[in-house]
Amino acid sequence: MVSKLSENTKGVFVISATPFCPDGSLDLDGTEQLLDFYVGCGVHGITILGVMGEANKMTDSESAEFAGRALRHVGQKLPVIVGVTHSALTALKELSHSVMDMGASAVMLQPISGLKSDDALFRYFEKVFETIGPGIPVVYQDFPQASAVHLSPAAWSRMVNAFPDLVMLKHEACPGLAKLSKIRDMERQGLQRRVSILIGNNGLYFPQELHRGADGAMTGFAFPDVLVNVYALFSDGRAVEAEDLFDQYLPLVRHEQQIGFGLPVRKEILRRRGALRHATAREPVYGLTEIDIAEIDRFLERAERKNR
Amino acid sequence: MVSKLSENTKGVFVISATPFCPDGSLDLDGTEQLLDFYVGCGVHGITILGVMGEANKMTDSESAEFAGRALRHVGQKLPVIVGVTHSALTALKELSHSVMDMGASAVMLQPISGLKSDDALFRYFEKVFETIGPGIPVVYQDFPQASAVHLSPAAWSRMVNAFPDLVMLKHEACPGLAKLSKIRDMERQGLQRRVSILIGNNGLYFPQELHRGADGAMTGFAFPDVLVNVYALFSDGRAVEAEDLFDQYLPLVRHEQQIGFGLPVRKEILRRRGALRHATAREPVYGLTEIDIAEIDRFLERAERKNR
Amino acid sequence: MVSKLSENTKGVFVISATPFCPDGSLDLDGTEQLLDFYVGCGVHGITILGVMGEANKMTDSESAEFAGRALRHVGQKLPVIVGVTHSALTALKELSHSVMDMGASAVMLQPISGLKSDDALFRYFEKVFETIGPGIPVVYQDFPQASAVHLSPAAWSRMVNAFPDLVMLKHEACPGLAKLSKIRDMERQGLQRRVSILIGNNGLYFPQELHRGADGAMTGFAFPDVLVNVYALFSDGRAVEAEDLFDQYLPLVRHEQQIGFGLPVRKEILRRRGALRHATAREPVYGLTEIDIAEIDRFLERAERKNR
Amino acid sequence: MVSKLSENTKGVFVISATPFCPDGSLDLDGTEQLLDFYVGCGVHGITILGVMGEANKMTDSESAEFAGRALRHVGQKLPVIVGVTHSALTALKELSHSVMDMGASAVMLQPISGLKSDDALFRYFEKVFETIGPGIPVVYQDFPQASAVHLSPAAWSRMVNAFPDLVMLKHEACPGLAKLSKIRDMERQGLQRRVSILIGNNGLYFPQELHRGADGAMTGFAFPDVLVNVYALFSDGRAVEAEDLFDQYLPLVRHEQQIGFGLPVRKEILRRRGALRHATAREPVYGLTEIDIAEIDRFLERAERKNR
Repeated sequence: MVSKLSENTKGVFVISATPFCPDGSLDLDGTEQLLDFYVGCGVHGITILGVMGEANKMTDSESAEFAGRALRHVGQKLPVIVGVTHSALTALKELSHSVMDMGASAVMLQPISGLKSDDALFRYFEKVFETIGPGIPVVYQDFPQASAVHLSPAAWSRMVNAFPDLVMLKHEACPGLAKLSKIRDMERQGLQRRVSILIGNNGLYFPQELHRGADGAMTGFAFPDVLVNVYALFSDGRAVEAEDLFDQYLPLVRHEQQIGFGLPVRKEILRRRGALRHATAREPVYGLTEIDIAEIDRFLERAERKNR
Repeated sequence: MVSKLSENTKGVFVISATPFCPDGSLDLDGTEQLLDFYVGCGVHGITILGVMGEANKMTDSESAEFAGRALRHVGQKLPVIVGVTHSALTALKELSHSVMDMGASAVMLQPISGLKSDDALFRYFEKVFETIGPGIPVVYQDFPQASAVHLSPAAWSRMVNAFPDLVMLKHEACPGLAKLSKIRDMERQGLQRRVSILIGNNGLYFPQELHRGADGAMTGFAFPDVLVNVYALFSDGRAVEAEDLFDQYLPLVRHEQQIGFGLPVRKEILRRRGALRHATAREPVYGLTEIDIAEIDRFLERAERKNR
Repeated sequence: MVSKLSENTKGVFVISATPFCPDGSLDLDGTEQLLDFYVGCGVHGITILGVMGEANKMTDSESAEFAGRALRHVGQKLPVIVGVTHSALTALKELSHSVMDMGASAVMLQPISGLKSDDALFRYFEKVFETIGPGIPVVYQDFPQASAVHLSPAAWSRMVNAFPDLVMLKHEACPGLAKLSKIRDMERQGLQRRVSILIGNNGLYFPQELHRGADGAMTGFAFPDVLVNVYALFSDGRAVEAEDLFDQYLPLVRHEQQIGFGLPVRKEILRRRGALRHATAREPVYGLTEIDIAEIDRFLERAERKNR
Repeated sequence: MVSKLSENTKGVFVISATPFCPDGSLDLDGTEQLLDFYVGCGVHGITILGVMGEANKMTDSESAEFAGRALRHVGQKLPVIVGVTHSALTALKELSHSVMDMGASAVMLQPISGLKSDDALFRYFEKVFETIGPGIPVVYQDFPQASAVHLSPAAWSRMVNAFPDLVMLKHEACPGLAKLSKIRDMERQGLQRRVSILIGNNGLYFPQELHRGADGAMTGFAFPDVLVNVYALFSDGRAVEAEDLFDQYLPLVRHEQQIGFGLPVRKEILRRRGALRHATAREPVYGLTEIDIAEIDRFLERAERKNR
């Protein structure tokens, strides 16, 4: 039995892709293969229906089907976080309860866009927690590039103190190194309880963020096994080796983090690694050209070469 | 039998509110009362599931239920346009066919955000029309305040020439007077066929836009009857009287067009006019204060006074 | 001798245009004529080098020349506020001291863009006040449409309490009615001292804002005399008459507030009213067409007609 | 005698920092030391008064002083590009002529923000070239992250064909790899003449962009000598070695590219390398903490270690 997410959660949570067939329909039968790949990479948890999972390109019923299938397959083995961002609180409640009932360990959400002050953000989450009720662990996805909502350390502190079910920050504001250090500093000063922080942004600053107190990563990088090893080395006190390993894959991390372009690249690599049956991402999406494919070949060859 | 929307469509299309109960649930049984109110105002058509209809705050099944109920009640009397904006083309297709089968006269959509050039916009609509197939009239909602996609007259001309099912522009870029004139000018020069243009933006520049060649309005203003009369006077060659009537309601038009604030104001006025059973808008939403209510009282009293 | 701006400042401050010659050069010799026009309108003060004054289209030396000429001509008669927004604090200091030495009553500034939390905003102003030193009254221009910086009532309260030289809020967030009421409410509760609030946004909600506690307006509307009369009627307890007068000019207020489009319209009207020798605005700028000019004719004729 | 910039310009142009004293004043006397450092790095040209040069934090006279000093010192040895972005065309003309007279090889500019279509962009540059007149080579800085203006390949092609003085694209849209390939492809098809493309974005994708046809880089990276060597290796047909060298410094490239945070980091490294006397950047600016400094130590140590 997998327990719910908590402030003490650590490790590498992979953001799962969603498998589609070449005609764009949901490839439900590809679910197990994909999740088995992730499990085989040694990840500590899985997040489904995130941005990388093309959640915004699915209908409600498709999301429910995929979540159900995924939770049945892997919900007993690993903690699964489910993205439930929605612009209506009624829908947020319904979704959250539904996935928790199916065995999710937590829900993840971004604030609605248009929240323009610390107070507005606080009041929004006050309504969220009132609406969904107690007992559901919540991950705050801090992704201002998409939400245009900015989370200051002071606002975070106030929310952590007010909302006991707020257990994790997915930290992907960029630049965000100073913010991460500031939050850890405020915790040390006793201004709020210590909360789990997993870093996002495709992991572009993972070693730096581990040094600054991150508890792990939550990204869709196509080599989650590498991030798992980086995390293990770092946790083992071997920070230099951890960074050496990370830097070896940094060229690819950087390549995949290009918004819009990174998604088809990542799905193509996941296909080559046997995780996906098809590299299809849902339209509208950037279509890889021959040049893009040759570039991916070169990246993988270079990563191979260094591993020898 | 109501025919499909065409390039020749004219008049005032009201953007329908969506009725909710005080607890935030869909007030399906309030549908007929609301639509009867609009019909009684003399509108030439109705648009459902637009921004004003809080479409983004409904689940897929709620949207389908409300659309079904609305189309059954009024789809035989008036042309009904249904908003189908979705970030996935697969969903767009499914939604469009579904509402057309239920008796809609056209679908309306905004381009996905992130289209950053004339070419990108064109290619997006090329994919849209390929995906949904021929025979479904499409209204382009030009609302860059939300989509961040900008439609130039040149891009519009190219799309009109390429896509015969593109029959209407909902024109609500602001400022947009120059664009409207430019498009009409290009049509006169024979650069593209003449397409219906209904203006949005809550109708803030309705008389000016009629002078510049608009075919009518598509807004959620709580006095659609007034816009119908303005349109009738103008069509009858009585432009000065049309503008006099409009200006009498301009204070309220301006008041309702405040983004975020305007929605609860509008629903409160619709409630007072007997169109809605409850003024409830879905959370998160701005909650009217006593000051806001007193202000509405003052506006309605002033409008009354002028009518005497 | 005109005193410095204070928390008690009230009335209508016009935002002055900057006169240019048809070739785009600064029309320094048109300064007196323009300012005399404003004085003749009965305004209570003048703001120069604001957005409407095309401050961002002038070189530093042009700004200094125009400010000098304006302050010599009118600085002994009326309070003059000078816009000093600059992305470097060193320049802000230099500019502020320079215009105060020339007889300005206060400086006005927008925060730099990119301030993303209440704390970041506070720290910015902390640095501003440290840099410019005490004794210079400061007007905060709250114009998030341009700065992308959002001022919450809580952030405002904190700044008012910390910075004694912060004497006025130019309130032009939109929608902004609720914010204005909230600030006045916090003052009544004793949370911070009462500060002057003049409303901007071209005055689109002037009567509503007077009801909610605004002390006047600061806009570039081409009929400042009308705003002066609206203000006088309202101050005299004749709120209904004030709003009647305002509503008569609302069609034009609304027309002029179109960003980008409004500036050349306004300069054309100022030219017709004898305030400017040339309607020239600096390139790049929207060029009025025959249709736009005919529209202005119609607006002025309608305003005339109502005055009869 | 250094010739003007042309379509054939290649190599690494460093974007120069601007030296300031600890009190924030311009450190004019630090100019020669800084430029000598860059020359010693083997750069092919220097760009002054760019974003990295804090151009927006200087007054007009400071900019002129620094440009004069820099051009006197290095303008006879290397091509110098001067940033002249300004929101008024009159100022753009004045600045451009002034720096060309002092010996600049070209001017660089970003379009004003608010240009929302291919046509609007074209018309803006049409006015720019009309205003500044013929004979001044112009570099287009494509930095939509700041300007919010998006340049499509089609718009670029049209401008290259219309404006013979448009000789270089500073390519820093992100993601931008596909755009670069598309432009080179259009040139090969004969749709427009071949123009120099130097890549920006701190060089984050430099090897990939060289493969796709870039002619070099224009960035402020604190190790321009490394970029010079990467470029030399690549030009010599040793692409793999070029990428190996680049990847060794990629961790630092990635670290410096954090907007806002990267500037003080970069100035600190330039100080340590003897290029700057002071690491001071102008306020408001992020202030490096002890953690940030320790992180820089670690980065430099790691780069050292790999070089052994």
